[in-house]
Formats: sequence, structure tokens, C-alpha cells
Amino acid sequence: MGFWKTWFSTPESLTTSKTTSFEEHTAASVGNSPNNISETSSKEARIVFSTERDLDLYELEELCDAVGWSRRPLRKVKKAIEHSFLVASMWQVRGNQRRLIGFARATSDHAFNATIWDVVVHPDFQSKGLGKALMKYVLKKLRSEEISNVTLFADPHVVDFYRSMGFMSDPEGIKGMFWYPH
Amino acid sequence: MGFWKTWFSTPESLTTSKTTSFEEHTAASVGNSPNNISETSSKEARIVFSTERDLDLYELEELCDAVGWSRRPLRKVKKAIEHSFLVASMWQVRGNQRRLIGFARATSDHAFNATIWDVVVHPDFQSKGLGKALMKYVLKKLRSEEISNVTLFADPHVVDFYRSMGFMSDPEGIKGMFWYPH
Ligand SMILES: CC(C)(COP(=O)(O)OP(=O)(O)OC[C@H]1O[C@@H](n2cnc3c(N)ncnc32)[C@H](O)[C@@H]1OP(=O)(O)O)[C@@H](O)C(=O)NCCC(=O)NCCS
Ligand SMILES: CC(C)(COP(=O)(O)OP(=O)(O)OC[C@H]1O[C@@H](n2cnc3c(N)ncnc32)[C@H](O)[C@@H]1OP(=O)(O)O)[C@@H](O)C(=O)NCCC(=O)NCCS
Repeated sequence: MGFWKTWFSTPESLTTSKTTSFEEHTAASVGNSPNNISETSSKEARIVFSTERDLDLYELEELCDAVGWSRRPLRKVKKAIEHSFLVASMWQVRGNQRRLIGFARATSDHAFNATIWDVVVHPDFQSKGLGKALMKYVLKKLRSEEISNVTLFADPHVVDFYRSMGFMSDPEGIKGMFWYPH
Repeated sequence: MGFWKTWFSTPESLTTSKTTSFEEHTAASVGNSPNNISETSSKEARIVFSTERDLDLYELEELCDAVGWSRRPLRKVKKAIEHSFLVASMWQVRGNQRRLIGFARATSDHAFNATIWDVVVHPDFQSKGLGKALMKYVLKKLRSEEISNVTLFADPHVVDFYRSMGFMSDPEGIKGMFWYPH
């Protein structure tokens, strides 16, 4: 886990634009160090973050399938991505191949509040600190847009995950409420 | 209260467009009935709903002041209104005068979810069923856009208000969470 974390401690070149192209957290390549001559080290894998919206929707569907989320019409997913304020994706890059391993998005009024939806890390990459790194990336982006109130609705099993990042549940008794059409 | 409620039970001509112009809930004018010859009846007041975004921001500020909300920079309020998915306002109309008496807005990804913010009814008009009518109008609009998941964050004293409209708090243990920049 510390292994991955170091990848994000290096300086970043982030833009404040909403529609930036592919961005790198300048993750050091595994195997750069001569002391690190293991089987995996020759693979030259690194983790990269992006706010690119032009995602392959089938690849995204595959990621959501992998954590057991129910399928959603791609037409609607496309529309939701277009109308999200922020779309964040996390990639494993090896040479010129990249694999989508994480995703999150946020709706917003572009002024006061943002609400984060659909946070997901591929099971093969969970519990390595990457979910936290993805959320940090999202929060940094939102903060750079001067959003002062970041909210989300957390399933019970991930409340502690978000709490570890500084999210508070029901602050001052404020309650998350849902209404479904009937 | 029943008095106001009848005003909303008549047929409406709502459009499904996001940016509709001034809309009426075809509220019957007070005093139309010959049995109703009271002092107020001659005033011909009615309540009208709108999704018009071109609001007078000073009038909106006055409404928010009236319920004790802290002031927000008008530049940001303007931006938030521009980037909200739905902006709903409620007006008392007498002849050719209109007064802003209620407001609500929603952010959305235009596909799956919407989040309602800044629900307010002027104190002079509270506890008459108008808050509920405003929320019904908002929900109708969101439903007409096929939004399937309507959410909000309720202050403790208004949880029952939203519950009376069918909103559920923490359904299946889902928790509303907040993060503030530090
Ligand atoms: C939730 C999710 C995004 C977390 O990603 P992850 O990469 O496994 O999380 P991390 O490894 O970065 O964990 C970060 C911290 O949260 C903790 N954590 C991770 N998952 C947790 C969970 N389910 N419950 C409680 N704590 C959790 C970790 O222990 C870690 O704490 P630490 O930094 O103090 O050691 C990922 O498990 C996932 O995609 N789950 C399925 C989809 C889902 O449920 N999404 C949330 C919908 S609301
Ligand atoms: C909350 C608010 C919008 C309600 O508007 P309103 O016009 O007074 O509400 P209504 O008259 O339509 O009330 C509708 C129902 O909710 C109930 N209700 C209204 N306010 C309530 C409250 N504060 N707590 C509990 N129930 C409430 C009413 O009894 C009524 O129930 P009924 O239909 O079963 O009789 C209004 O009081 C307001 O603007 N408050 C200040 C701003 C605020 O707190 N907004 C919410 C921020 S999250």
C-alpha cells in the first residue's frame, strides 16, 4: 500500500480546466530503481488520472459490472457523463496500453455545491489506497473550482471509507433524503 | 390552508422544457365567487409557478434574507442559477404586479439523479401548503425529465416536511455526507 502511495506524492501538473486532456500524476515507473528487479518491475506499470470525458462506455460498463452494479442504458450513461461537472477516471498504464481501473463523477451548480456519484475501483486494485487517491484527485479538482460544499450519498459499507477522507455524515443533523417516482 | 390547496387542484399546462417561460397553475382568482365578497377578495391575488431563470437576484436575496439565510455573493448565485438543472420560483400575482414568495432549484446529471437545494417560502406565506405545492411542482418537473433518483439534504427541522411528501431519510442505510475544504 505504501508502495502505491509514493506514486502520488510526486509533483503534479494539474490544470483547473474542466475539460482537460489526459493528465498524469507523474507516477514513477516501477522498475526504475536498480534495487527493484522483481518480476513485476519489468512491467513498467504506472497509475494515471484523467478528467477526459471521452471514455469508452463499454469499458466503463465492464468496470461497473466488476463491482456488481446493475447495468444502465448506455444512452443515459453518456448523457450523465456529458452533464456531470467533473468526470474522473483512473488508469493503469503499461507502455502504450491503458486499462480503466477507477471512476468517479460529480454534479454541481458550478458555484456552491458538488455531489459525487459512482465512485468505483476495480476489485483487482482495491485496498491498495487507490480509492483514496482517486477521491483526493476529485476533491482537489473540486476545490480548484472554488466549490465549498462537497456532498455524496454513501452506502453503509463505505461510510468509513469516506470518513477516513474527512467526510462527515449528518453534520448538524442534516439528513440525506431520497424520493423515487411512483 | 384548504383555501390555498384548491388553487393547485385545477388542470395545469406544464411544458417539459427546462427553460419554459412563465407558467401558471391556472389558479382561480380570489373573489371570482359572488359568495366571497370579503376585503381580500377584491385584491384578485393568485399564485403562479415558473421555471424562468431570469430572476431579479436582489428580489431573490430579499426572500433568502427573510428566512435568515446568510448572504451569498450575487455573482456566485447567478452562476449557480445558470448551472442548475431546474430553477423553480413561486409568485403572488395581483393584477400586473408580482412578488417572489418561493424558490427552489436542483442540480442534476440530466439522466439519473437530481439534488434539490435552497427550498424557501417567504415567512408571510408559510404553513399554508405552499411549500408542499412548490415541491410538488419541482418533483413533477424532474419526473417529466425522467430523473429516477431525487435527493436533497434536509436541515433537522424540515425532515418531516420532506417526509410528508414521500422523501425517505437514509434509505437502506445510505448516508448523506459532507466535506468542507480545509
Ligand atoms: C469503495 C471503494 C471505492 C474503495 O476503494 P479502495 O481502493 O478499495 O479504497 P482504499 O484502498 O483507497 O482505502 C482507503 C481507506 O478506506 C478504507 N476502506 C476501504 N474500503 C473500505 C470499506 N468498504 N469500508 C471501510 N473502510 C474502507 C481503507 O482501509 C483505507 O483506510 P486507510 O487509508 O486508513 O488504511 C472500492 O472498494 C469500491 O469500488 N467498492 C465497490 C463500489 C462501491 O461500493 N462504491 C461506493 C458507492 S457509495
Ligand atoms: C420549509 C418550508 C419551505 C416549508 O414551507 P411551508 O409553505 O411552510 O410548508 P407547507 O405549508 O407546505 O407544509 C407542508 C407540510 O409540511 C409540514 N411542515 C411544514 N413545515 C414544517 C416543518 N418545519 N417541520 C415539520 N413539518 C413541517 C406542514 O405541517 C404540512 O404538513 P401537512 O400537509 O400534513 O399539513 C418553509 O418553512 C421555509 O421556507 N423555511 C425556511 C427555509 C428552510 O428551512 N428551508 C429548508 C432548507 S433544507
